[in-house]
Amino acid sequence: MDQFFKPKNVAVIGASSRKGKIGYEILKNVIKSGVKAYPINPKRKKILGIQCYKSVEEIPEKIDLAVVAIDANKCIDAIERCGRKGIKNVVIISGGFKEAGNVALEKKLVEKAKKYGVRIIGPNCIGVFNGENGFNTFFQRNMQLPPYGGVAILTQSGTFGIALLEKFANEGIGVSKFVSYGNKADVNEIDLIEYLEKDESTKIIAMYVEEIGRKFFERNFKKPVVILKTGRGKLGQKAAALHTGAMATNYEIFKGVCRQKNVIFAEDFEEFFGIIKIIAMQGLPKGNKISIITNGAGPSVLACDFMEEARNIQMDNDVVDLTGSATACDYLNAIDESKADIILLTFVFQDAPLAETLDELYDGLRKRKKFYVAIALGGKFIEKQKKRLAELRIPTFEEPRVAINSLNKIVEYTMRK
Amino acid sequence: MDQFFKPKNVAVIGASSRKGKIGYEILKNVIKSGVKAYPINPKRKKILGIQCYKSVEEIPEKIDLAVVAIDANKCIDAIERCGRKGIKNVVIISGGFKEAGNVALEKKLVEKAKKYGVRIIGPNCIGVFNGENGFNTFFQRNMQLPPYGGVAILTQSGTFGIALLEKFANEGIGVSKFVSYGNKADVNEIDLIEYLEKDESTKIIAMYVEEIGRKFFERNFKKPVVILKTGRGKLGQKAAALHTGAMATNYEIFKGVCRQKNVIFAEDFEEFFGIIKIIAMQGLPKGNKISIITNGAGPSVLACDFMEEARNIQMDNDVVDLTGSATACDYLNAIDESKADIILLTFVFQDAPLAETLDELYDGLRKRKKFYVAIALGGKFIEKQKKRLAELRIPTFEEPRVAINSLNKIVEYTMRK
Repeated sequence: MDQFFKPKNVAVIGASSRKGKIGYEILKNVIKSGVKAYPINPKRKKILGIQCYKSVEEIPEKIDLAVVAIDANKCIDAIERCGRKGIKNVVIISGGFKEAGNVALEKKLVEKAKKYGVRIIGPNCIGVFNGENGFNTFFQRNMQLPPYGGVAILTQSGTFGIALLEKFANEGIGVSKFVSYGNKADVNEIDLIEYLEKDESTKIIAMYVEEIGRKFFERNFKKPVVILKTGRGKLGQKAAALHTGAMATNYEIFKGVCRQKNVIFAEDFEEFFGIIKIIAMQGLPKGNKISIITNGAGPSVLACDFMEEARNIQMDNDVVDLTGSATACDYLNAIDESKADIILLTFVFQDAPLAETLDELYDGLRKRKKFYVAIALGGKFIEKQKKRLAELRIPTFEEPRVAINSLNKIVEYTMRK
Repeated sequence: MDQFFKPKNVAVIGASSRKGKIGYEILKNVIKSGVKAYPINPKRKKILGIQCYKSVEEIPEKIDLAVVAIDANKCIDAIERCGRKGIKNVVIISGGFKEAGNVALEKKLVEKAKKYGVRIIGPNCIGVFNGENGFNTFFQRNMQLPPYGGVAILTQSGTFGIALLEKFANEGIGVSKFVSYGNKADVNEIDLIEYLEKDESTKIIAMYVEEIGRKFFERNFKKPVVILKTGRGKLGQKAAALHTGAMATNYEIFKGVCRQKNVIFAEDFEEFFGIIKIIAMQGLPKGNKISIITNGAGPSVLACDFMEEARNIQMDNDVVDLTGSATACDYLNAIDESKADIILLTFVFQDAPLAETLDELYDGLRKRKKFYVAIALGGKFIEKQKKRLAELRIPTFEEPRVAINSLNKIVEYTMRK
């Protein structure tokens, strides 16, 4: 599996000389990540200044990984050649397999790979990203990549995967390894979770799945696992089948199994990101008592409404409403007085008394080691403050519902650990 | 009521010379909005270069509006003086009344005002903003104010009110009038809705309420009204009582009355903003059939899951998955082929084939007049595209759940109109 993440020599089968084409962008990103790239395109002599080959078999050097971006019906041949060349790891970006109704084609692909001992990630995916060395097989552009850190991402959606990477980059949350595995014709979530459980750098595992086997749950999960599963009803199941060839499963059963194994499942993407964000930035809370401190109580009232159903967290006291005249000092005093396990700070940064004393606020927060989550809503000025809070590893939410529900699930996980 | 929004001469009672103090910031904003400001502070001769008075009674000119930011127990005296001066409109920013348990004090305040025929907005609020002339009574800073337009905002939370204004500013959504009315000791939601129904510039009314009287619903609402109500259970009701002195009401009854009168109620702040945003930018759809067109299907699968419960909208067909190799041309063709009433476009802008053809995309969208809603997730590059879509009046969502649920409620409203 390591060769998927730390290859030295990478062949890009279907490399293109045309900017904007998937085969061009993958080659560009592979080159950019510092490995030795070998474009494979029978019609070109050079692409992006690098010598092109007609086939992998013509390459003199040993190749660690091949990334394939050619028509589905040409992939079996490509695997054959990779096999003969001795390439053991292949990422197939191309779609047009089981998700498009070509079940037999996908089966043959896997059989061909097995014949040579080749492992396939995909098909119909965007491949891998290694947070440690920056290696990736993406065809995306204008993307912000996150730093190196403890969150591993496994996803059957390139889109959600990219969204997570960019949002992590924005908040300084680090990623260990990322795998978009599409139709999971060969390498699947079970192979990947086993790999990640042994991967020292991985501390939390985030998964977006459309199909997940029961076998996945036949283990004890030492690291927190957070899953966003789709295909919950007929409409979603149909869409999932058309997307990754996913088989329909009962969502209630899935949730039940998650509960049994203390795997966290998320209601929607925001909650998925919210839970991961809190654990990555603050870790796990030591208890379930929550204190809400604010200079503008509207969002706190809404938070209390959602706390009604959040059975795992409890208000430590009434909402501490410092009112609009609150300064940093008022916040810090309230924090010092609180005995709660979780401090939920709602900030109206636009209120002048607070705006006037921001440096004091951040300094004070830095000195007080507690479990913090923040809520703040607004425009550019708020975005700046969110960044300053992120530097203190404090996650900020806009929607009180998401903050409360994310905390509720994290506390439930922690209490059952 | 007009004097609250178009005053020429405004007294600021409790004006302060210290930056960061509420009385300073209000005076600053009032001056900035272009009206003639009269700071009232017995201890100062001048503030911000303007002559200070000991009391409103010393001002030679006629005063249209007074904004009060002094201790609660000094407000009755201030009202007395305003009454004697002939000021008919007063905004009381100060808290410390019914919400703090001082019910009798608030009653006396209102009695004193009635004696002189003075109307009070507040207490315990952030006052007003007029989108047309920019006049406002805010003590906030670093705020982005929206342009002039058709959305009126009535709110019992300054925080949520500010958040809406900034988010509107970000998306170019215009505001007619904004009133934060706090404890609604005098002017309440009934006075305000009657005023707004006659206000030509107001096309949609957005309300955040902690308490709302049954009398509010004794009318036929010609313009769409969207309400976010809190205080739904014991925890929230307690928080609401401490915030604005709100009385507990049964949330199920509230929802039932909304349904009867075709008033839209929102589940949370995001849905609240989502519904208003869609109506403000796209208007009302002509039917309930929805088409999902995407170059990255993950979010569409999740959207389909939420459509299961969204009884008012229906998929026109399967998700149109153009895959990651889609260009602008593919999107435009799919849009041309669709007969749906609502086109939900999910964009993975980071995918190079699309990134390469963005100008063509936006140009094509501009030429095709349909009912559009977009979903896009990511970082800085995505934010830029969201702005370009906003220029085309296309609202963008990050969370598929919010997009689907907002559309569901809008279609229900439209079908029952």
